[in-house]
Amino acid sequence: MTLQVYLSGEIHTDWREQIVQGAQGLDVAFEAPVTDHAASDDCGVAILGAEDDKFWHDRKGAMVNAIRTRRGIEQADVVVVRFGEKYKQWNAAFDAGMAAALGKSLIILQPAEHDHALKEVDAAALAVARTPEQVVQILRYVMTGKLPG
Amino acid sequence: MTLQVYLSGEIHTDWREQIVQGAQGLDVAFEAPVTDHAASDDCGVAILGAEDDKFWHDRKGAMVNAIRTRRGIEQADVVVVRFGEKYKQWNAAFDAGMAAALGKSLIILQPAEHDHALKEVDAAALAVARTPEQVVQILRYVMTGKLPG
Amino acid sequence: MTLQVYLSGEIHTDWREQIVQGAQGLDVAFEAPVTDHAASDDCGVAILGAEDDKFWHDRKGAMVNAIRTRRGIEQADVVVVRFGEKYKQWNAAFDAGMAAALGKSLIILQPAEHDHALKEVDAAALAVARTPEQVVQILRYVMTGKLPG
Amino acid sequence: MTLQVYLSGEIHTDWREQIVQGAQGLDVAFEAPVTDHAASDDCGVAILGAEDDKFWHDRKGAMVNAIRTRRGIEQADVVVVRFGEKYKQWNAAFDAGMAAALGKSLIILQPAEHDHALKEVDAAALAVARTPEQVVQILRYVMTGKLPG
Amino acid sequence: MTLQVYLSGEIHTDWREQIVQGAQGLDVAFEAPVTDHAASDDCGVAILGAEDDKFWHDRKGAMVNAIRTRRGIEQADVVVVRFGEKYKQWNAAFDAGMAAALGKSLIILQPAEHDHALKEVDAAALAVARTPEQVVQILRYVMTGKLPG
Amino acid sequence: MTLQVYLSGEIHTDWREQIVQGAQGLDVAFEAPVTDHAASDDCGVAILGAEDDKFWHDRKGAMVNAIRTRRGIEQADVVVVRFGEKYKQWNAAFDAGMAAALGKSLIILQPAEHDHALKEVDAAALAVARTPEQVVQILRYVMTGKLPG
Amino acid sequence: MTLQVYLSGEIHTDWREQIVQGAQGLDVAFEAPVTDHAASDDCGVAILGAEDDKFWHDRKGAMVNAIRTRRGIEQADVVVVRFGEKYKQWNAAFDAGMAAALGKSLIILQPAEHDHALKEVDAAALAVARTPEQVVQILRYVMTGKLPG
Amino acid sequence: MTLQVYLSGEIHTDWREQIVQGAQGLDVAFEAPVTDHAASDDCGVAILGAEDDKFWHDRKGAMVNAIRTRRGIEQADVVVVRFGEKYKQWNAAFDAGMAAALGKSLIILQPAEHDHALKEVDAAALAVARTPEQVVQILRYVMTGKLPG
Repeated sequence: MTLQVYLSGEIHTDWREQIVQGAQGLDVAFEAPVTDHAASDDCGVAILGAEDDKFWHDRKGAMVNAIRTRRGIEQADVVVVRFGEKYKQWNAAFDAGMAAALGKSLIILQPAEHDHALKEVDAAALAVARTPEQVVQILRYVMTGKLPG
Repeated sequence: MTLQVYLSGEIHTDWREQIVQGAQGLDVAFEAPVTDHAASDDCGVAILGAEDDKFWHDRKGAMVNAIRTRRGIEQADVVVVRFGEKYKQWNAAFDAGMAAALGKSLIILQPAEHDHALKEVDAAALAVARTPEQVVQILRYVMTGKLPG
Repeated sequence: MTLQVYLSGEIHTDWREQIVQGAQGLDVAFEAPVTDHAASDDCGVAILGAEDDKFWHDRKGAMVNAIRTRRGIEQADVVVVRFGEKYKQWNAAFDAGMAAALGKSLIILQPAEHDHALKEVDAAALAVARTPEQVVQILRYVMTGKLPG
Repeated sequence: MTLQVYLSGEIHTDWREQIVQGAQGLDVAFEAPVTDHAASDDCGVAILGAEDDKFWHDRKGAMVNAIRTRRGIEQADVVVVRFGEKYKQWNAAFDAGMAAALGKSLIILQPAEHDHALKEVDAAALAVARTPEQVVQILRYVMTGKLPG
Repeated sequence: MTLQVYLSGEIHTDWREQIVQGAQGLDVAFEAPVTDHAASDDCGVAILGAEDDKFWHDRKGAMVNAIRTRRGIEQADVVVVRFGEKYKQWNAAFDAGMAAALGKSLIILQPAEHDHALKEVDAAALAVARTPEQVVQILRYVMTGKLPG
Repeated sequence: MTLQVYLSGEIHTDWREQIVQGAQGLDVAFEAPVTDHAASDDCGVAILGAEDDKFWHDRKGAMVNAIRTRRGIEQADVVVVRFGEKYKQWNAAFDAGMAAALGKSLIILQPAEHDHALKEVDAAALAVARTPEQVVQILRYVMTGKLPG
Repeated sequence: MTLQVYLSGEIHTDWREQIVQGAQGLDVAFEAPVTDHAASDDCGVAILGAEDDKFWHDRKGAMVNAIRTRRGIEQADVVVVRFGEKYKQWNAAFDAGMAAALGKSLIILQPAEHDHALKEVDAAALAVARTPEQVVQILRYVMTGKLPG
Repeated sequence: MTLQVYLSGEIHTDWREQIVQGAQGLDVAFEAPVTDHAASDDCGVAILGAEDDKFWHDRKGAMVNAIRTRRGIEQADVVVVRFGEKYKQWNAAFDAGMAAALGKSLIILQPAEHDHALKEVDAAALAVARTPEQVVQILRYVMTGKLPG
């Protein structure tokens, strides 16, 4: 049965492409948020009309994006959440919290420098990976029982 | 019926005390994480034995704290999550995600400077407050129907 | 065990008082939305700050009220929804839909003139009553097995 | 993965056709109630036998229709509820309440004149649209990340 | 913690009284349907108005009774269902099915002559008892660990 | 999307064949219990070894059959329960109770003589039919919106 | 709010008494299985009648005990499962699996020699303790924020 | 509809192959844990990096394996748990507990010598089989209604 994987978090590097590429040949289907930063920020007002107040501009966009992201998390077997070096990334931690509460298998992809700050998030995860390749290796092992090397 | 409120997030200012104090006389019961930072960081190893590796030191503590925090969120009617000016605060966003997935009424208490970064979290909330006093006013209104002033 | 009853809907007549009065002596606890119309409409901006746009003014208030109404419905054993002669009353029908989806025992209190328009709502209910006294009689029968007269 | 969309509410204009037409080429599957008004009103007695009392005539029909509508809502990822200019439309608000309680992504399609009356319903929605075209644009953005224009 | 026990089924003998009497001194709270047969049959029309058609007369009563019986089953830890020697008793089997689907601990109280006909019901139960006294002994053992004799 | 229908109850007439035949051309998938009475009674001991005691002989069979019947009910959108003229048929009422508790759309197929005895079961159903043809007409209407005649 | 703790597993040493004693003064309520080994083994036949076949003798007892143990686990906030040095203790691991699936906070109390064999169970737990005193310290920390020493 | 079967437990004999082979021609899909013992033990460190402490070495592996095993159990209609002659096999009993709590149909495959020790696990099962062939016969009967011989 196809493994449903949702790739949440950082959108400034090509980690999603690395995982999708690395997982070729496995029976895995990937979902992700919209990763076009400008479109993601403006989707609410672009479709539903402008707002004078930046707060509601943001709210409208965040709600439209939630249609996609909540479905992605709810339908996933595995949720991978990537924390990058920069930015607040509270939406990534929020997604991890949702995934944990929904009983999803959670894999956190993070640099070691964030280990202490992410300890509560990691404690709800089944794996803490450092590289996209490790995530691919987990997916391959889960689907085929084969270890790398 | 007593309103169960969980106060999650920032532990460096006295916002919890302000809310508890302000809500005196209302039928509200508050829960919160352990806010003694040192105890919270070291509870795992202090009770269950030292770890050489900081990663597992942190994991043990985060898991022991989770006994308290998950129960607090699961039993709450209302979850208030406070984001302060500093630090990563990913555990706060993680708690907000859990609360949202569990269908809790979510109130986010945040400075305006974080509005854009918290837009996905705020979009799952029923109120975004700027001050502890506003949280108290919401609780009073919810319990008594009385508005301030 | 105390019967939890939530009284949803029309706020312009004293039907809630009639039911609460009539049920005196029964082990029933009543909850209801804030029935002060002006407070209910303005609670969001009164507490969290004014909005230029009426749409967001309303949204802020509706979200604050939802803290109370959703809890009231979720904790209820029985949800009574009253439809009056006037107004759109979509919030009443919305509450009935929530109650139905949550598996609550639903009693609809409505004038006969609305029977056709309410047929989908009524089809999810365990009783369609015409008067508050009938609701009291149902509660008394449910709690004591005694019929009127 | 195919997006399941349920189109609830007003049955007197061609808004459903506009959305289905506009969404051609997207991986979206639409469900809807029976929109033949006469059939919808009479299905209960036409199949299961006549009733002397209009109340039970309506009840039988509403229950048969519920087989279709509840399944449509329960299986949906997104529930779009259209409120028209006329009629009570309590079944539309009831469907919105069910969808909200089930955690569905809710899009309300409504004219601005109903904004105040629908504020509680809107507060549970992820988008309030004015035109079927906006709903199509949301579906396209959710599925492809592409904004209009 | 008080054990909640719902006593469903046959209403023509005093088996409920025997169990309640026998369980005196244990921390057990009993609920049951209305056992006044005439009141139970007529509650719908007595409160909500007469019906010409016996089918709807019965439906109205069954729905009003469901407010009590569904709550009783949902709040119970243990559901005891008694099948007597006579009558169809489909409501008893229906209650047992609800209790099983809700994960309640089910005790069936039945004469041996019904064993074959009740095999599917019994297969969902944790005990098949022959006498009210055995039910009391189970409750005593569950609460205190003491066996009879 | 294919409508999943489970056909529970009486196994001595060809009502299932009539419904399956009548529903040809509709996107409906039917499931049912094993209707070979002898196989159904003996499956437990035939596979897992004989029992001296008829009670456990029956239990073993009822548990093996439950693997099929519980799955059939859980996966169904619609559960049709047929009550015939004879026998206790408590398993049919039990299935109806499970279906009701799981929120399935329930159709009861019963002769008028059973109306009073089945009133609690019927009160949880969306339709009470008299003939297999009426069930087919409901399924056709639900799937296509077309009424008979 | 009182912390509900269920103490599952090994019944041959006084570890439960140590924990209950150590937790005096904390707002904790303990539940446990019947720890009288003979009563636990024979409760089914002692109450419900003898069985010739040891397999069904055991089954009857296990089912009666399940009334108590499943309720204990379902109502618990924290489930402590103790594995001793001897015996198969599959019921302890079974309880741990139930607790994990129900989202309970799980504490495993085990000697180091079992670490490898219990790794899958431990991976679902929030703490692995070696002594009853450590369990008490966890409960005290969770309830008061105080660390030992 | 394809029957989803998860084969949990003992990995030292070819019982899984016997069942898969015997079930050829049936519409059954099998899932299982990774049965390569060395890979299963080392998967955590092989992918995510070595650990000095055997406890965390085991933990990392058990968590990675849990991604596969929890999904297998959650998606299954039927969970077969095999207990062999040797080893602790607590993970097998743990899987059985999860399956029971999730309402899965549980078949236990065990030698008679374990009957007393497994009585609590068996009491949650719908069948206790002695041979893989019996499991195949159950699956064939569930899918086709045909008994062996």
